[in-house]
Amino acid sequence: MAQLIVWTYDWVPEGPRGFVRDLRLRWACEEAGLDYAVRTVPFDDRGPEHLARQPFGQVPFLSDGDIDLFESGAGLLHIARKSETLMPRDPAGEAQTLQWTIAALNSIEMVSVPWWFLEVTGAKENGLTGWLTSRLDRMESILNKQDWLAAGRFTVADLLMADVLRVERLRAFGHYPATEAYIARQTGRPAFRKAHADQMAHFAAADAARA
Amino acid sequence: MAQLIVWTYDWVPEGPRGFVRDLRLRWACEEAGLDYAVRTVPFDDRGPEHLARQPFGQVPFLSDGDIDLFESGAGLLHIARKSETLMPRDPAGEAQTLQWTIAALNSIEMVSVPWWFLEVTGAKENGLTGWLTSRLDRMESILNKQDWLAAGRFTVADLLMADVLRVERLRAFGHYPATEAYIARQTGRPAFRKAHADQMAHFAAADAARA
Repeated sequence: MAQLIVWTYDWVPEGPRGFVRDLRLRWACEEAGLDYAVRTVPFDDRGPEHLARQPFGQVPFLSDGDIDLFESGAGLLHIARKSETLMPRDPAGEAQTLQWTIAALNSIEMVSVPWWFLEVTGAKENGLTGWLTSRLDRMESILNKQDWLAAGRFTVADLLMADVLRVERLRAFGHYPATEAYIARQTGRPAFRKAHADQMAHFAAADAARA
Repeated sequence: MAQLIVWTYDWVPEGPRGFVRDLRLRWACEEAGLDYAVRTVPFDDRGPEHLARQPFGQVPFLSDGDIDLFESGAGLLHIARKSETLMPRDPAGEAQTLQWTIAALNSIEMVSVPWWFLEVTGAKENGLTGWLTSRLDRMESILNKQDWLAAGRFTVADLLMADVLRVERLRAFGHYPATEAYIARQTGRPAFRKAHADQMAHFAAADAARA
């Protein structure tokens, strides 16, 4: 099997470290025990070459032999097909994993990221607060009843949902104990800790190289 | 093959008609020539039974034999696996289709739906306008260069992206001729026209039943 390559920035400011989305792909590879390497594109100069690979000027993207794909959610589903650790092989388990992976992207992150964006850019009012509350309330209710989102066990849907929910400003938003416990369980996994430590070390090394 | 069942509301007000997301699943089934039926859940009373099937109280959800899944994006990817019309079978074509399907959900709709929400709820300022502009600018640049998003031909990624972009308030937002031409091409497809007409007729019949 061709080695997977996870592409990220060569450097980022301190703020986003630990949250740059190459972490999702690193984490998935670690869970599945897949061989992968990390390569970089410039953070400062995102020219036509970057846009040709990621049309919105973001990271990560993934190379798998001669296949390239952007969008962390697409990369996760691509990697998940390689490993039953990430996605069950039975049709019902696979459908549950797919639905919750998409829910993390399109029902939670679709509200939480724009809410966060308004907060950090200092909008005078945040018109998304009520909507965010209703979504986090529903997740709390679900996570009160079940430890895992799909198929009664860890899947790539938990990986992604935990990464969406663990954003600090979001966790400070309200009192959601079942959600907190869920985040703690997922981010306590050795594969997350390895991926997180590796990302932090990657950007720390970049600081040293720039100094 | 088990018949697919697309679940939607029994009725909705006039505003969202033509845009309720069961249309995405109807459209996909029409493109692929798959046998499907439409069934309904109450719009007015969304109780525990609804939440057990769609935890955020929305529609659509899809039944495929004994498999149920919510999230229109997940339903689309599930249906797409059944038909090469919607998703190429070669790994590179499939990866491109996957990345653009996720991009529609997580790079465009993640900005456009909250922007739209702030607009219709009359937020005093819409702090997402700059972000939306940058995303629509990038899509315009891409659609200036290519007729289709993935694999050089129609895929489920075009179906979803066109459905995301065709929202009227979004089209009134700026001057994007390549995007307009793209929307016109996709929504001119017989399968879209059939799905759209069927949804409009479905809700019109509901009006008659309530009268």
